[in-house]
Amino acid sequence: MDARVKPAHDAEIMTTAISPLAPKTIPDMPAIAGVRLATAAAGIRYQDRTDVMLAVFDEGTSVAGVFTRSKCPSAPVEWCRARIKGARARALVVNSGNANAFTGKHGRAACALTAKLAASAAGCKIAEVFLASTGVIGEPLPAHAFGGVMAKLVAAAAPDAYGEAAKAIMTTDTFPKLATARTRIAGTDVTINGFAKGAGMIAPDMATMLAFVFTDAPIAAPALQALLREGVVDTFNAVTIDGDTSTSDTVLAFATGAARAAPRIVRTNDPRIVLFRKAFNAVLASLAEQVARDGEGARKLVEIVVEGAVSKHSARRIAMSIANSPLVKTAIAGEDANWGRVVMAVGKAGEPADRDRLSIWFGGIRVAHKGARDPGYDEAAVSAAMKKPEISLKVALGLGSGRDRVLTCDLTKEYVAINGDYRS
Amino acid sequence: MDARVKPAHDAEIMTTAISPLAPKTIPDMPAIAGVRLATAAAGIRYQDRTDVMLAVFDEGTSVAGVFTRSKCPSAPVEWCRARIKGARARALVVNSGNANAFTGKHGRAACALTAKLAASAAGCKIAEVFLASTGVIGEPLPAHAFGGVMAKLVAAAAPDAYGEAAKAIMTTDTFPKLATARTRIAGTDVTINGFAKGAGMIAPDMATMLAFVFTDAPIAAPALQALLREGVVDTFNAVTIDGDTSTSDTVLAFATGAARAAPRIVRTNDPRIVLFRKAFNAVLASLAEQVARDGEGARKLVEIVVEGAVSKHSARRIAMSIANSPLVKTAIAGEDANWGRVVMAVGKAGEPADRDRLSIWFGGIRVAHKGARDPGYDEAAVSAAMKKPEISLKVALGLGSGRDRVLTCDLTKEYVAINGDYRS
Repeated sequence: MDARVKPAHDAEIMTTAISPLAPKTIPDMPAIAGVRLATAAAGIRYQDRTDVMLAVFDEGTSVAGVFTRSKCPSAPVEWCRARIKGARARALVVNSGNANAFTGKHGRAACALTAKLAASAAGCKIAEVFLASTGVIGEPLPAHAFGGVMAKLVAAAAPDAYGEAAKAIMTTDTFPKLATARTRIAGTDVTINGFAKGAGMIAPDMATMLAFVFTDAPIAAPALQALLREGVVDTFNAVTIDGDTSTSDTVLAFATGAARAAPRIVRTNDPRIVLFRKAFNAVLASLAEQVARDGEGARKLVEIVVEGAVSKHSARRIAMSIANSPLVKTAIAGEDANWGRVVMAVGKAGEPADRDRLSIWFGGIRVAHKGARDPGYDEAAVSAAMKKPEISLKVALGLGSGRDRVLTCDLTKEYVAINGDYRS
Repeated sequence: MDARVKPAHDAEIMTTAISPLAPKTIPDMPAIAGVRLATAAAGIRYQDRTDVMLAVFDEGTSVAGVFTRSKCPSAPVEWCRARIKGARARALVVNSGNANAFTGKHGRAACALTAKLAASAAGCKIAEVFLASTGVIGEPLPAHAFGGVMAKLVAAAAPDAYGEAAKAIMTTDTFPKLATARTRIAGTDVTINGFAKGAGMIAPDMATMLAFVFTDAPIAAPALQALLREGVVDTFNAVTIDGDTSTSDTVLAFATGAARAAPRIVRTNDPRIVLFRKAFNAVLASLAEQVARDGEGARKLVEIVVEGAVSKHSARRIAMSIANSPLVKTAIAGEDANWGRVVMAVGKAGEPADRDRLSIWFGGIRVAHKGARDPGYDEAAVSAAMKKPEISLKVALGLGSGRDRVLTCDLTKEYVAINGDYRS
């Protein structure tokens, strides 16, 4: 390993037990015509594990992407943003161990070198190569290391390597995140596969949510972009672990068009993609939920529903205020249906709310009603509900018909240990 | 104790050791002519301690106040807001143990009863009584309990009881917070005293930052209001513990005018109050810093300075984004100068920032410069700086001349334990 890439401190990634909230089974991932994947160990940061994933796409593959709102994005985010309007993708290179973020000119050069190596090996244009990186921030990415593995990756690329691909991009995720769906467009079967890595910003400097979705449906790039932009709103954008936004968050979608019997879709209001949209969103929703289930130190998956707000936007802001409140999250970790803290979080959201109309439910049990403690609620039943690994929290504002839902996890001592204790 | 006010759960306030960040000495508080204070144990929630504080003011005392921005404020906040324009105060009643927040009609009735009892005992109008409450949310405040102590409080009120008053309003604060300053207005000595309780939302449902400031200077209510509103901007409003906003935050200022040799101040641009303003702000700043020093579970006091922003407002938003980032706060708890997380927090603030101009200092040592790791920094020196109980973190954006400073504390496992573990 190049001495320059030695981390500023020698903290190693913790050996973490699989999250108790992990799905019980990993889905069996079908092949998607036009997509082949391979993984390798390039030695970027880790010992004895894969750390780079290559996907190669047949000619004619459309691409769409959504990215972090950070004002200090990583070099790969800037690379993809600049090339997404080209609409075509032939390769995707994702590495773990180094985020190539806050790396200045060197970061841009590392992106250019990685894309050049991939284009040369895959026989495509540099502008058709998409990139994502996750790992330490601020350390130069030794992209020349990819030179030693790129030709082997192209040669080894196979249609059934989704599970391996999902593992190669993990940083401190405790389980690989995969989802698949099958649906039809105008009578033709099409498949949607996806994998993701989590928002777990677990080891030092680790930060990033990455997700990649693949389909053989023939969807033109502008329609794919619109589908993705709409799809993330209630999935990836409705998940929060700690309110911290990574420099590198990336969701890319690739449509190979290999299901040639299906009509080419150019508009998202085409009635023939009603089912496809539903399946596509289900894949995004599954991956986003798995990210929440693997939040750092998480012991509870928390669904927050806000209804009766003046608008969906207002409901989202209130739900996020609750989901990001350390006091609400620690109360849930303590299995306490602490609705006083929920009131606090509603109040601080800055959105219209009338204390005297507010009702709050934990686990379906109403604990507060019209601005005061619900005199009828059964403390034992609420206690039992709070002991479950999945907690539902509903707030009714009584003002309008705006409704929204977000997912989060609890805030445990393990979160602090994971993020703060590695030096001790 | 009325059975109805038994908390929903029996968690008791923890016995917490005094914060290691507590000031070494408690100031000796002088008397202020026109102000007398007394405390009592009304049995609202606690055993064996005082839980109510009465201050009585001579006729002609001006009052000013600033309050939480919560959309779900407590009943006492609404009471004070409605009466602050009356400009005159004769009594202040503050209780601990019950916040009288989210208590509906009963909450308004409890305020009216408390004010009636105080007005009757102190011989003033109900509208001249100001109120604040701190403690559990959502439980009815048994205000009739004040009936048994109010006459005794008025009889016992004395000019030297600041220390006792500061103790009576504590909830889970680990030390009483007091500050005093002496200055001159046009050659006449005037005194400013203040006490506060912390933003520590420590035991179940506990929430509130309360502060009270008293002076014998003759300041008309509109000028006092303007001074207070300006004064909190860089003091109480520049402190954050966990980003959570209480339903009850209240700062009230009282000016008795007993220093009759001083000219009556009616405008804040009066050149005769330059020194007074400075002393008044110093009292606010001291109390606000003591609140940060008593943040729940805090082991480090953190000063965050942002400079080179496009405006002071923009610098404040970036500083708050850093101060409220769980990843930055846990890194500081772990004594790690993790500037990658600072970059992340700058990026997520949504304010203008240029990654390639960003520089970051920990403890005065530059660790990142112009968008990349500073190659010259001494890791051992930074490590030593991070072990100190007071940490300075500076970010230079290189865009403009906007500068701001906020105070916060680290996020420790004790925070989670205090806020989440009480059921286990």
